[in-house]
Amino acid sequence: MSYYMHDLTWPEFNDKKDKVVILPIGSTEQHALHLPLCTDAKIAEQFSLHLAEKIDGVVMPTIVYGYKSKPLSGGGPLFPGTIDLNGSTLIYLVHDILMELVRDGFTKIFIMNAHFENEAFVVEAMDLVNRETNGAATIVESNWWDPMPEDVIDLIFDKVPFPGWALEHAAVTETSLMLYFAPQLCRMDRTVDVVSTNALPYFRYPLKKDDVPESGALASCAYSSAEKGKIIVDKVLPELVNICKKEFNI
Amino acid sequence: MSYYMHDLTWPEFNDKKDKVVILPIGSTEQHALHLPLCTDAKIAEQFSLHLAEKIDGVVMPTIVYGYKSKPLSGGGPLFPGTIDLNGSTLIYLVHDILMELVRDGFTKIFIMNAHFENEAFVVEAMDLVNRETNGAATIVESNWWDPMPEDVIDLIFDKVPFPGWALEHAAVTETSLMLYFAPQLCRMDRTVDVVSTNALPYFRYPLKKDDVPESGALASCAYSSAEKGKIIVDKVLPELVNICKKEFNI
Amino acid sequence: MSYYMHDLTWPEFNDKKDKVVILPIGSTEQHALHLPLCTDAKIAEQFSLHLAEKIDGVVMPTIVYGYKSKPLSGGGPLFPGTIDLNGSTLIYLVHDILMELVRDGFTKIFIMNAHFENEAFVVEAMDLVNRETNGAATIVESNWWDPMPEDVIDLIFDKVPFPGWALEHAAVTETSLMLYFAPQLCRMDRTVDVVSTNALPYFRYPLKKDDVPESGALASCAYSSAEKGKIIVDKVLPELVNICKKEFNI
Amino acid sequence: MSYYMHDLTWPEFNDKKDKVVILPIGSTEQHALHLPLCTDAKIAEQFSLHLAEKIDGVVMPTIVYGYKSKPLSGGGPLFPGTIDLNGSTLIYLVHDILMELVRDGFTKIFIMNAHFENEAFVVEAMDLVNRETNGAATIVESNWWDPMPEDVIDLIFDKVPFPGWALEHAAVTETSLMLYFAPQLCRMDRTVDVVSTNALPYFRYPLKKDDVPESGALASCAYSSAEKGKIIVDKVLPELVNICKKEFNI
Amino acid sequence: MSYYMHDLTWPEFNDKKDKVVILPIGSTEQHALHLPLCTDAKIAEQFSLHLAEKIDGVVMPTIVYGYKSKPLSGGGPLFPGTIDLNGSTLIYLVHDILMELVRDGFTKIFIMNAHFENEAFVVEAMDLVNRETNGAATIVESNWWDPMPEDVIDLIFDKVPFPGWALEHAAVTETSLMLYFAPQLCRMDRTVDVVSTNALPYFRYPLKKDDVPESGALASCAYSSAEKGKIIVDKVLPELVNICKKEFNI
Amino acid sequence: MSYYMHDLTWPEFNDKKDKVVILPIGSTEQHALHLPLCTDAKIAEQFSLHLAEKIDGVVMPTIVYGYKSKPLSGGGPLFPGTIDLNGSTLIYLVHDILMELVRDGFTKIFIMNAHFENEAFVVEAMDLVNRETNGAATIVESNWWDPMPEDVIDLIFDKVPFPGWALEHAAVTETSLMLYFAPQLCRMDRTVDVVSTNALPYFRYPLKKDDVPESGALASCAYSSAEKGKIIVDKVLPELVNICKKEFNI
Repeated sequence: MSYYMHDLTWPEFNDKKDKVVILPIGSTEQHALHLPLCTDAKIAEQFSLHLAEKIDGVVMPTIVYGYKSKPLSGGGPLFPGTIDLNGSTLIYLVHDILMELVRDGFTKIFIMNAHFENEAFVVEAMDLVNRETNGAATIVESNWWDPMPEDVIDLIFDKVPFPGWALEHAAVTETSLMLYFAPQLCRMDRTVDVVSTNALPYFRYPLKKDDVPESGALASCAYSSAEKGKIIVDKVLPELVNICKKEFNI
Repeated sequence: MSYYMHDLTWPEFNDKKDKVVILPIGSTEQHALHLPLCTDAKIAEQFSLHLAEKIDGVVMPTIVYGYKSKPLSGGGPLFPGTIDLNGSTLIYLVHDILMELVRDGFTKIFIMNAHFENEAFVVEAMDLVNRETNGAATIVESNWWDPMPEDVIDLIFDKVPFPGWALEHAAVTETSLMLYFAPQLCRMDRTVDVVSTNALPYFRYPLKKDDVPESGALASCAYSSAEKGKIIVDKVLPELVNICKKEFNI
Repeated sequence: MSYYMHDLTWPEFNDKKDKVVILPIGSTEQHALHLPLCTDAKIAEQFSLHLAEKIDGVVMPTIVYGYKSKPLSGGGPLFPGTIDLNGSTLIYLVHDILMELVRDGFTKIFIMNAHFENEAFVVEAMDLVNRETNGAATIVESNWWDPMPEDVIDLIFDKVPFPGWALEHAAVTETSLMLYFAPQLCRMDRTVDVVSTNALPYFRYPLKKDDVPESGALASCAYSSAEKGKIIVDKVLPELVNICKKEFNI
Repeated sequence: MSYYMHDLTWPEFNDKKDKVVILPIGSTEQHALHLPLCTDAKIAEQFSLHLAEKIDGVVMPTIVYGYKSKPLSGGGPLFPGTIDLNGSTLIYLVHDILMELVRDGFTKIFIMNAHFENEAFVVEAMDLVNRETNGAATIVESNWWDPMPEDVIDLIFDKVPFPGWALEHAAVTETSLMLYFAPQLCRMDRTVDVVSTNALPYFRYPLKKDDVPESGALASCAYSSAEKGKIIVDKVLPELVNICKKEFNI
Repeated sequence: MSYYMHDLTWPEFNDKKDKVVILPIGSTEQHALHLPLCTDAKIAEQFSLHLAEKIDGVVMPTIVYGYKSKPLSGGGPLFPGTIDLNGSTLIYLVHDILMELVRDGFTKIFIMNAHFENEAFVVEAMDLVNRETNGAATIVESNWWDPMPEDVIDLIFDKVPFPGWALEHAAVTETSLMLYFAPQLCRMDRTVDVVSTNALPYFRYPLKKDDVPESGALASCAYSSAEKGKIIVDKVLPELVNICKKEFNI
Repeated sequence: MSYYMHDLTWPEFNDKKDKVVILPIGSTEQHALHLPLCTDAKIAEQFSLHLAEKIDGVVMPTIVYGYKSKPLSGGGPLFPGTIDLNGSTLIYLVHDILMELVRDGFTKIFIMNAHFENEAFVVEAMDLVNRETNGAATIVESNWWDPMPEDVIDLIFDKVPFPGWALEHAAVTETSLMLYFAPQLCRMDRTVDVVSTNALPYFRYPLKKDDVPESGALASCAYSSAEKGKIIVDKVLPELVNICKKEFNI
């Protein structure tokens, strides 16, 4: 049977009430000249699918529109194709979905996030639902970079230095993951040389044209490969499984 | 090049500023024992794709969570797997997406709806954006049943009477469309006999268990076929194309 | 004793806790050159009063400002005198009124709607209140056209064809009802010939001046009469009474 | 021609664009054993009508549901029949109505309030509209007690002392106004003796049953009369006219 | 131990669960040429501190940004330095703070207000929290002028007439309180002669430059003194203590 | 003249329109057994004051109630004394304050944050204001840890390892800053030994009692000192000054 909720009929979904429901959340956001706008959404969905296979979970339809892209972690709103939701919109979107799951009797919910900027608003939604339902369900939110074991960084950044997570936008890790998950969507002939700038330690509005490189890439994607993508998945997945085991008692 | 916005890079999407952008909107909703939860989302997306092919448009990622399913047009919230957004959540979700398109310079937007209950809230979002932007973009919303030529009804309902659109949930038209668009997701061995009830001419809360048949089907899907699905598509598509030609001057 | 809540003192209203409370909702909206802006509000109130007489109910003050008039069911916002509430405003207005009734101990609430565009937002309010109060009250919403027996259409449209409900704005049915309910407010010397256009099967913003005829009438009101108004009332009222009997066990 | 907007057709209303539009706002609130729930709404509407006659204005449909009744100015929410809107609901209701008037080209708007508790929220709506429209219209809010010349108090309270405006709920002034405006709705045989308590100089929640007298009256209505009602109207009306002349340059 | 919550550690605050928690609320608002922008905030905080000393209470951090200053009670928004919150912002700010106190187990909450315009919105927040928590805590709101015994007015206004509370902005009472509480922040060499205008008995938008005197003072502050400030405090404080004793049973 | 806006009169504040306005934002949050609830607010205010002295800026009143404390960066909501605002409340609070500054003509605004959890919501407010005002003002948000030069970590953590910023709650850096800024509020006799746990790489609701150590401290504060506090200030301040110089052209 499919791991995707959307492929199921309602009785099939109903039968999975004691399984972990995984809600992927990504974005529609510029990812430089070589990666598609779906990058975060695809990565969220693929990690969710792999996780579902390991724990016999079910993958909900991906939230494909996310919170506002910020200049120094995603390039920001000045690039066409970046579709930014307001904070309160994302909070209530996640809130309503979670409430419906709780009403339907699901108590093990895992939100798989692949767009850094979503996090504070997703967690706000979790908190609101938790208060309204008096903690009726266990709701976990994670992403693929925070649970990553430290030695993976060394494996991936074997030839170029790690620029820090904020700048890893359309750079080595995301490019490698996309080469692994969806190589047909990667235009590796269009990658550009990027001299990683330092992430500014503050936010400033209005944004300026040269806040980010013209291509939208914040750091180099040189030496990306599907193999490196696979390494990330193979190393992160057991961590996600462990989180589920610990928090959901599965 | 793909018609899907999500497959494009930002410069590719940027190049389509004078094209029609199509935003499919469906739902995650019970569709009886034989159709998957994605039915409305899939139909919205497929009509969008076919339309894009005809007018060289671009298809945005589908909004897969929609407004609350109502008992007599969708079976209602008592079925697990039906994920209902609050009205204001959907209004602001659509609002934010439209605002971003307008800010990015797109002026021809077509919302392709396949879940009846979405409509009033989608149109509210359109009105709000129109006021805020002083009509900077032309925004059209349609679905696949209102533009359908009347003679199609006779072609489709050749052996059973047409129960009215409200009851056509998981019935002949949706089943035929899914048999055409995604036969692998249809479990035609699980269809149940349904004696179409009359749609109640009013709304009542709280809902009751027997407001809708136990299966979730509101009318019979007997004599559904991929051929009939193709007929619907072939007949409706030119109408959608005409709407676009007239309203977007393409 | 008056059927109008507003004429009662609080102890008199308090004594009616086991009666059906009827909340009329209309609009303030252009109704062509011959009908007043109160048309929907007056019709909602009069149906409510007639219903209250039949079931010994109580009629709340009419909600006279409604949701946005749409071009092809009401002429739209371009006509002065059309006062359009935003969707969320109407939702919370109805929500708060319903919540107060429930808090006061009323459990049988009937919302009598006479403005098509209100419906989705009124029902959203009902759903929200139902969730918040765990279904403490039975809340019904209906209008005067959906429960109308089919043969009434033939009686009313004896000389001109029925243009469909969407176009029946300031046309035969509403004009006849107003001639019956409030003839002094009808300026039958100002009616204009209207060639009914077809209702467009989609929504488009921004609106254009010629989306609707200059007069604001969407269909002809020829052959309207107070007698026809009485026929509608006499035929619809028993249906409304039946709904109340069935849903409120009265 | 009627002074009531609701009796007009849209072209008639359109012709009044340079007139003062008067928006009455009252409440649905307990008014002791002898006055009806419509008391504030009726008084607001009647003052509006009288004002319209003097300045050739137009009276909009009355807002009949108002902000929460407070114990020491209206008896509070514990009496059935008191329908309390949340603050934000009233703000947006008034906001939307004002915005529509401004969009329709009206620039002289007078809000006639007869329910003390409404005021802060009505003024918030005025401020919001004023900011959004850059002051496109002159919007005035007043009531019937603040512009009252001081000598009227002496005329009205000739036999009993004036208890202060906060306690003048269902007491001498409101009872006299209702005896003048709508004597058929007054049950003067049901008045009760009330020993005016002092208004508490603070607010406290939760309310207690004995915060207000059991009847709902906060002060005595002894010696009320239609004549006193007429005195109030005759004395206040010129003040309202003066406000309009000064602020609207009419 | 400090009476200020902010000086305490969490276990120290936790030990005060059966004490009265006092929440001061003021504003950031022009106060003529001689008083600082903190005037209302300082007065609210100082009354709170004095009250805490009398009843062994605890003083929360002052809410220093308040509701919109109105022309005839605070000079209005045209003066730089007046920072006006929208009504809904203040409602939810107070709401959230109160909810947290209730969740932490505090049941005796006193809101000490020193900015007239805050009151309706603070009370709305109290009502919302009271409904959501089913009256779990007793919440009182007062200020320093309503509980003031009447004879204090005569003591303070011994040489100039009392202009009414609305005009007492940056005038004798506030200036005297500030001379008592924070003399170092008063620039008594900059006071200006003000001929008290009458408070207008209505609200009008847009505001005009000459709605208030150029200095921002609405009435004279002549004959203000620290001694008069002390008189106010000495007379009002016992009243506040009495309110607390009565409502909190301390 | 004072650097604090609240000490100024409105004309004094008005004279500073071309200066940088600094808005400190902290929290009311448990800080273990030895630091007061004001810790974040005090640190934000003190950094603001020091910055104002360097750039002749003006310090607004501190926002003392912040976004929800999270278990692994602040100990979370289970500790009494932690007052958590909802996300939308904080967004609109900051939004309204910024809007008022822009309306008053200020164009250089620096938000000094000392509570990690605030950041996403503060930046959302900045973005909303920027959109509404078309970038009329330059608005910067920073904190004291992101601009900190890397070598400071080595100076501060000379005897214990740096546990990471997430765990630096009531630990060496905050304790040292408080010993420097407000030693009288530090109870160094109550510090407890803490074995730094690892920050969990995910969020989970509901929280559990043992998610954080019983004291509320997430890491050790051993070897904290006022001297170390001074080092942080001396090293961070030039960075903040540089940000201001660069972004505000001062």
